[in-house]
Amino acid sequence: MTFAATVLTLYPEMFPGPLGVSLAGRALNQGTWSLDTVQIRDFATDRHRTVDDTPAGGGAGMVLKADVLAAAIDHARALRPGCPVLAMTPRGKPLSQARVRELAAGPGITVVCGRFEGFDERIFAARDVEEVSVGDIVLSGGEPAAIMALDACIRLLPGVMGAASSGTEESFENGLLEYPHYTRPVEWEGRTIPEVLRSGDHAKIAAWRKQRAEEDTRSRRPDLWERHVGARAQSASGARQKNEGPGS
Amino acid sequence: MTFAATVLTLYPEMFPGPLGVSLAGRALNQGTWSLDTVQIRDFATDRHRTVDDTPAGGGAGMVLKADVLAAAIDHARALRPGCPVLAMTPRGKPLSQARVRELAAGPGITVVCGRFEGFDERIFAARDVEEVSVGDIVLSGGEPAAIMALDACIRLLPGVMGAASSGTEESFENGLLEYPHYTRPVEWEGRTIPEVLRSGDHAKIAAWRKQRAEEDTRSRRPDLWERHVGARAQSASGARQKNEGPGS
Repeated sequence: MTFAATVLTLYPEMFPGPLGVSLAGRALNQGTWSLDTVQIRDFATDRHRTVDDTPAGGGAGMVLKADVLAAAIDHARALRPGCPVLAMTPRGKPLSQARVRELAAGPGITVVCGRFEGFDERIFAARDVEEVSVGDIVLSGGEPAAIMALDACIRLLPGVMGAASSGTEESFENGLLEYPHYTRPVEWEGRTIPEVLRSGDHAKIAAWRKQRAEEDTRSRRPDLWERHVGARAQSASGARQKNEGPGS
Repeated sequence: MTFAATVLTLYPEMFPGPLGVSLAGRALNQGTWSLDTVQIRDFATDRHRTVDDTPAGGGAGMVLKADVLAAAIDHARALRPGCPVLAMTPRGKPLSQARVRELAAGPGITVVCGRFEGFDERIFAARDVEEVSVGDIVLSGGEPAAIMALDACIRLLPGVMGAASSGTEESFENGLLEYPHYTRPVEWEGRTIPEVLRSGDHAKIAAWRKQRAEEDTRSRRPDLWERHVGARAQSASGARQKNEGPGS
């Protein structure tokens, strides 16, 4: 089945952009995923085709109008009824690899890209839209974030990465950063590949990689590490409670 | 001065991509920033132009060779001596808005985009490269992340956003999410713009916005909120210690 990507934007010419090249581009040509862009401006109702207005209460910049956005979203939803609608915004929930896996397993996604100061907040109360953030930085618009989210989904679609790379042993898949990689030459500028990786001892290699993934996560991303330890403790206590039964 | 963006990639055709359109595209045409791409493959040393090899210790995928990458990075550094070199990798430090501001204030950035399983780790020991991550999701390559990082920098360059939008009152600038926005119509689908925003009372509006920014950060992003509270407590205790003087 073709994964349907629909992008609501004021700049349809930004797409497919980098998604038209390499892995994602090949998959697009092969029909593994499809791309439709919806020009938000087409849903403006005045003759100036206005999509934004000044923020209520004052302040810099312009805000995307709720009525225009709603019409564009309703149009996209009618086009792709089964697809969740995501809006890229720094106020959103950080997109996780777990959510990416869920999205990639579904029929597709509809992505709303903002510009200017942001969306009229009422759109999120009035329509079923998932506010999603990718990275704690501010962009000129949602388009680069949408490309990131789509790329993350597309690479997981069946056949895109090939059988060799299942994508299950990499950063975030188990709540940890991935262990470091090395390849030939064995010695380069006086630096050698860690000996264990050249030992051929698969159990030792796996143990080393697990340890490095844990160490690197703890030192580089204490936030991820705390969540990982918390989740582990919770699942252990859940298992204990299960074993102890309801009477204990 | 022109902000110099240099991108090391196996897919130079992905650039400028969305950065050639709208705000960033106009700034590129006006010479506010410049874009050079470096084809990593040009630094391969064998006649097959090999850039990757199988991971030491086994496993799926291919790893970018340290020797080829180093040659490409050395070339880029000679081209743009003053520019920090960033490598986009999920193992990196999450790119913050504060770091984006620093980078945008500098002469430019050189961004290394990985593909396949990742980089040979020795490159980070051997060269001064900042490992940077944008969002806890896995991509098919560093290019979409590089586009995001560049977009975040470019919009902050002098003249790009215009005087109306200084970019200082938005998400992450003070460690908080931005408050929600509203614009006309005042009533839409039975939902009205909060009354305070229509009051014309600037002090009340500012207080409401501050409160909403804090509330939304606490409920949506407890991680950011904890860091914000921690930073506030630390600066308060620092101020107290200063007032109390060295004798107390």
